Amino acid sequence: MAGSDGEFQLIDRLLKPLARHDASLGLTDDAAVLTPRPGHQIVLTKDMLVEGVHFRTVDTPADIAAKALRVNLSDLAAMGATPLAYLMALSLDADKRGQWLADFTAGLADDQNRYNVSLIGGDMTATPGPMTVSITALGEVPEGRAVRRNRARPGDAVLVSGTIGDAALGLALAEGRIAGDGMAAGFLLERYLRPQPRIALADIVRDLASAAIDISDGLAADMGHIAGESKVKAVIEAERVPLSPEARRLLEAEPGLLPLILTGGDDYELLFTVPPDTVATACERAADVHIPLTLIGHIEQGDGVAVVDAGHRDIPLEHPGFRHF
Amino acid sequence: MAGSDGEFQLIDRLLKPLARHDASLGLTDDAAVLTPRPGHQIVLTKDMLVEGVHFRTVDTPADIAAKALRVNLSDLAAMGATPLAYLMALSLDADKRGQWLADFTAGLADDQNRYNVSLIGGDMTATPGPMTVSITALGEVPEGRAVRRNRARPGDAVLVSGTIGDAALGLALAEGRIAGDGMAAGFLLERYLRPQPRIALADIVRDLASAAIDISDGLAADMGHIAGESKVKAVIEAERVPLSPEARRLLEAEPGLLPLILTGGDDYELLFTVPPDTVATACERAADVHIPLTLIGHIEQGDGVAVVDAGHRDIPLEHPGFRHF
Repeated sequence: MAGSDGEFQLIDRLLKPLARHDASLGLTDDAAVLTPRPGHQIVLTKDMLVEGVHFRTVDTPADIAAKALRVNLSDLAAMGATPLAYLMALSLDADKRGQWLADFTAGLADDQNRYNVSLIGGDMTATPGPMTVSITALGEVPEGRAVRRNRARPGDAVLVSGTIGDAALGLALAEGRIAGDGMAAGFLLERYLRPQPRIALADIVRDLASAAIDISDGLAADMGHIAGESKVKAVIEAERVPLSPEARRLLEAEPGLLPLILTGGDDYELLFTVPPDTVATACERAADVHIPLTLIGHIEQGDGVAVVDAGHRDIPLEHPGFRHF
Repeated sequence: MAGSDGEFQLIDRLLKPLARHDASLGLTDDAAVLTPRPGHQIVLTKDMLVEGVHFRTVDTPADIAAKALRVNLSDLAAMGATPLAYLMALSLDADKRGQWLADFTAGLADDQNRYNVSLIGGDMTATPGPMTVSITALGEVPEGRAVRRNRARPGDAVLVSGTIGDAALGLALAEGRIAGDGMAAGFLLERYLRPQPRIALADIVRDLASAAIDISDGLAADMGHIAGESKVKAVIEAERVPLSPEARRLLEAEPGLLPLILTGGDDYELLFTVPPDTVATACERAADVHIPLTLIGHIEQGDGVAVVDAGHRDIPLEHPGFRHF
């Protein structure tokens, strides 16, 4: 673990207790040393979150910690990988080095227990600007079993976990861009603040999925990533897209919210394609781990993503994410 | 590779050409997938550099790229590891997304060739604040052969590569804190801007060193890290500390610069301990790869670091790095 001057005491007091994996060497050295499990590959992902861009200055330290870790664990789940450990680099202004940092590390400790991962290294530094946290998460998959985005095939079914659009609606409510009742707002904002990485689905994805991704850019855009890499067309039936009761109530009151639901990011649900004869197996196995899966569309020859209504008419979506497809 | 909206084109154009390792999956997926070499461990380190803190706003994009990558490669060398690949997270303001980013990635491409590493994943995002770059570098060591800080033993010799104090003097000259002639300033500032990770010494460290570290916090402070983790005392003879001709000239003109030389950071030389009967072998092997090694002290029983003059009197050093030891 690196750090300069005054940071060493903070590392000793707040970060070393998070180092519970042998690879960390107790955060005493220049680097971590990971012993790979025979027959397995290491899966690595790295996201950076910037205050005011990916989280709000008003968010609690524990919420920020949870989000920073979970968006990376979500990437691992999308590859079918089991999480092992993470490295973290933090840049903090002087105000955040006391109770704020203690609350942040307490949030990490909770999530370490929840997801069975350990801090194994990183860096802490000063910044005059917005707080920035970058986590590199490591997982493992049996050799050759990582699930990519590029193997969706015509005829495959499209499945999605959980419910879609909650995070985007929650943020829009919190920022006053749309109107809604307080109870719905609380639930939906929580979905934005505390994504649930679908680690429990990693085995199912690994066993059954032809292609997979986690939804961070929005359902339509992330479906587009699979379609683009697989060189196929994805058709999503909007009526099948699973909504929480709170999102459904908002949509019924304001049908114009549909594009936000279909294109809003930050849901961190898993979106994946499976051969059609494995849909039932996938849904049963997901039910065993208490995560709903919903069939929302299919793959055909062609390119791009079509989101269609009940009459199979294209629903036009305007969103910057779309210009790439 | 993650990124949002407008970042995808930049990733395609500027970052995908840097992905030359199979583990990158061409930066198309949620994560990289690394196949460990049998009998080897993966060594991981992660540093974060913030504009205005770790580099100057006036530094060139290629200098910033080189520094961001090299400080991490230096950590790998200190563990005795061979570099393999890296992940990078970048946060940039809007001004830096054009030619600046093209120059930055060109700098990375140069260093990828120089050090035989490849980008395998990461993230690019917007920031309203200072530019921040975090790199996670991966290396490998034969199983059980990583060199740590905690095995220095009484009687060991202390060796250091290259020359010490150049980077701190270069920065002090550039910032007008000390006076010097233009030619010395150019050389010394280059040492600050372009650290030389001592990857060519990794084999020697692995074969001979009892403990090792790279000098980022300063010679005295980093010696203190080895002493602290090894529970021994380190004695450094100031007269033996290797200086560049430029640093020596400045020191002769102003003897009061000695503490800055001994405690200034950013040299990224390797500092390591070896059993006394292997000093000659270490120096010969280092000469074969054209890197000078210098014997600067020894390890004894006790704790902390003593820097002594030619009469074996302690040289008092005041530096925040010291309060931890």
